[in-house]
Parts: sequence; structure tokens; C-alpha cells
Amino acid sequence: MEYQDEVDYVSGKTRVFGIVGHPIEQVRSPEMFTAEFRRRGHDAILVPLHVLPDDFDAVLPQLLRLRNLGGLVFTIPFKARACAFADAMGDSARVVGAINALTKGADGRWHADIFDGLGCVEAFRRRGIGFRGKRVMLLGAGGAGSAVGVAVGFERPAWLRIFDVDTERATALAAKIGRASPGLDVDVGPSATDGVDILLNASPVGMLGDPRLPLSIATLPRELVVFDAIVKPERTPLLALAEKCGCTTVFGREMMRGQISRMVDFFLA
Amino acid sequence: MEYQDEVDYVSGKTRVFGIVGHPIEQVRSPEMFTAEFRRRGHDAILVPLHVLPDDFDAVLPQLLRLRNLGGLVFTIPFKARACAFADAMGDSARVVGAINALTKGADGRWHADIFDGLGCVEAFRRRGIGFRGKRVMLLGAGGAGSAVGVAVGFERPAWLRIFDVDTERATALAAKIGRASPGLDVDVGPSATDGVDILLNASPVGMLGDPRLPLSIATLPRELVVFDAIVKPERTPLLALAEKCGCTTVFGREMMRGQISRMVDFFLA
Repeated sequence: MEYQDEVDYVSGKTRVFGIVGHPIEQVRSPEMFTAEFRRRGHDAILVPLHVLPDDFDAVLPQLLRLRNLGGLVFTIPFKARACAFADAMGDSARVVGAINALTKGADGRWHADIFDGLGCVEAFRRRGIGFRGKRVMLLGAGGAGSAVGVAVGFERPAWLRIFDVDTERATALAAKIGRASPGLDVDVGPSATDGVDILLNASPVGMLGDPRLPLSIATLPRELVVFDAIVKPERTPLLALAEKCGCTTVFGREMMRGQISRMVDFFLA
Repeated sequence: MEYQDEVDYVSGKTRVFGIVGHPIEQVRSPEMFTAEFRRRGHDAILVPLHVLPDDFDAVLPQLLRLRNLGGLVFTIPFKARACAFADAMGDSARVVGAINALTKGADGRWHADIFDGLGCVEAFRRRGIGFRGKRVMLLGAGGAGSAVGVAVGFERPAWLRIFDVDTERATALAAKIGRASPGLDVDVGPSATDGVDILLNASPVGMLGDPRLPLSIATLPRELVVFDAIVKPERTPLLALAEKCGCTTVFGREMMRGQISRMVDFFLA
């Protein structure tokens, strides 16, 4: 045995998970999910699976026939299309009309849900902050905003106000959340912090060196809790201002971690 | 960062390889190939892919559409069927009529070969022993014996004699090797060591606690080089006798390592 001829992190017994994406090189799920599986003492690995959009419908059903496949994660171009392969969808997925996780249940069926928004709720829970009874302002009604809005709506805030530069999109999301959470006070409004307890940014403003704030404001009340879904940079202009004003800040990376934790619960259920 | 939230051995950039098998839990390729990739500084991982025999023909072509799939290894039930998915086959694979490795060439085509026998040749090469001009006795003309016999035939031994309890099978293999290596002195004969330089056991006799020798003999000439393809146990009854008689011994595990090395050459070519 003149050299280390075996690694200790993959074997014939390892349960395999995959992230299906296009492109694939930038995804962070392989290193993060695999670490979470290990932390929980589970012999599993998540590997990147680069599928071209034209191949998706043919490849997916065959991937699902791999007997040791535990589940799949989907990146943006596939989140809506992947619904077709789910036998059962969770509440968030049904409302959003997209999934980002698919796993084989003990019943042999493929269960799906979307965890982007649940990750935000989980991040707040870990900070000891609940949404119930809170007044919440959500900026951004795109993919991330939809997921966050639907998940927060299920938490029964006092009210939820949505702003998007595309008012139609904000209106459509408010209606969707209203249908999913009957009786919830949800509407569209201007981006402001008056009477708001929790400010959520799910718009792309402030991403990757963009110096702008997602709302026109010079200061924030220190009682406000400010969250930004953006992961890069970690400290967005909005979060930097919030810190300066003494607000509690919740970072995009915390949402990502919360999401991974909830998804691994789902995968190992 | 309250805990280690990333592993360092898989990411979105990692090239994925798989071993397609049924059953799958017992395979050793994941830990061994992955170690060899790492040893060569290549960001790649080999994972187990459990495919049921009934699913094989439908699953395979779709697996090959994964853009970051570097190649596949096949276990016994699939070695012959996998030929259907190769665009080009190496010399050994064409003669044996089976493959155990498939990889995407720079030309975008799927190249295949079988390395079981090449692993034996490689193990000898690493010991500084060539087959050229040697008198070789091969015991066993099944799957392993065929692969070893064909690969050794290509090395131009002085002659190659084959023994199998099933004489028809030995005869068929001798004919196949003769066609693959025209002019080679290859025939079927009794299991004996008279005038033999290298004795190769590729029969299952001596495997997993079987106390028998693959030939009826009480002693071996010390000039003989004795190889056993069996991996478990490492020291088969044949190799134990060979050691007792002062022979040079080559172990099944060396063939496995030689094979992995040659296959990784093939995968990274």
C-alpha cells in the first residue's frame, strides 16, 4: 500500500443526490449539502448534474430510475418544468408553481417542494424571530420574492405589503398569496418602512457591486429587522445601512443555510 | 460560520464519473477511482449508480447526455450490453465482446474498452516483468480469464496455454485469442507448470475461503511467477503455496490497482 488508494467519503453504499442545472459550474449545493449530510452522520453525497434544457424532459425520468438516487435539487431554468415529475407537491410548491427539491418517499413516490422561501423563515426562526403578527414589507416579486412571500404568508403576519418596480407582477403575487393564505391582509404598496416590523429584500438591487438601495431612503428605524436574500455580496448596501442604523440584520447566507437544513430534513425524512 | 458548512471534495466544477451496477453496494470503484483522480490532482469523483437490468437500455443513453459526465464503469451484468452505447471500441473490448469503461473523447464520441486483462499486464509491468517471449499458463477461461488471456496474447508471449474445467470454453477462448493475435502460439492444455514461466489463475478456485488449488500439484518451481486474479482473500491457497516454494507472487489487488490506473489514463486522455 505505497499510497493512499481509497478515499473515505464515497463508496458503493453511498446514497447519491444531484443538483440538476444549466449552467452548473457556479452551483454551491454540492459542497454545502454534502457537508450537511455528513454533519448528520448520513452516508450521502450531492453531485452536479449538467443537463441541457433541450434534454431535460428525456433525461429526468431516467435519472429517477437510479435505485440509489435519494433526490434532486433544481436550479432556476428547471424549477417550473420539474413539477411534471413530482407525484406529490408541498403547499409552497403548489402555490409558487415550481419546485427545487424532489425526493423519493418511503411510499416509493416522488415528493416535491420549493424551499427558497422556507429558508428565509428558517433563518428568522434560528434568530428567534417569528413572522406571526408582524408587519412585513417585501421588496421584489420575481422568483425569489414569490417564494419568500408565499412562505411568509403561511406564517400569518399582521399584514404583508409587496413592492415591485413591475406593479402588475406585485399585484399578481399578492393575489396568489391571498388565495394560498385566505384571510391574510396582503396588498401592493410603495416601498416604505413606516409601521413596518420586518423589511425583506428579494429584489436583485444591491447584487454583485450594484451600489443602489432597493428603496429610496436615507435612514432606517432601529427597531426594524432587515433581511436581504442576496448572497453576494454578503453585506449589501441595504444591510450596511441597516447596520449603521442599529437594526437587526439577517443575511442571505443565513437563508441559504436555513434552506439547506430544511431540504436535508426533506431528503432524509 | 458556527460549523463546517462545506466539504472540499465536490463542487459545481467537479467532473462526475459513475459505476453502473446491479447490485451496487459491494463495488469498490467509488473510493478507489476517486482516490486515483485526487492523486493526479484532477477534480473528479466516481459515484455508484444502481441501475436495474430491466432499466439499463432506457437509462444509459440519457445518462450519457449529462454534460459533466466524464465516463462510466460497468460491473458484470452490464459489460456485454454496454457495448451498444460505444461509438468506438478498443482492441481488447472488440475481441472480448464486452467493455467495462466508457468515456467521452475530445471528439465528443463515446470510446470504450475493457481493462480487466490490461490491469494484469500493468501489474506485471509495475513489477518489471514483461510477458514478451515468456511461456504462460492461464487457468480459467470465463469472464476474467478471457480478459486476461486476450490482453496477455497482445503482449506476444512465446506461447499461451489455456486450461478450463470446461474444455469447450477453453478451446473457444484459444481460438478467439488466436484470431486477435495472428501467429501467436496459443492452445488448450492440461493444468501443469512444466516449462512454464508465468502461471496465471483467473478461475474462481480459491476464492472466499475455498481451500482448493486451481491445479493438482504439491509444489511449484521457484523460478515460476505466480499470479492470482482473486482479490478476496488477498493470499489465496495458490499464492500461499507459491510463497512457500519461493516463487515471485503477483496479487489480485495489484491487478485491480493496475486496472484502475489504466482506466484513469483512459478517462483523462
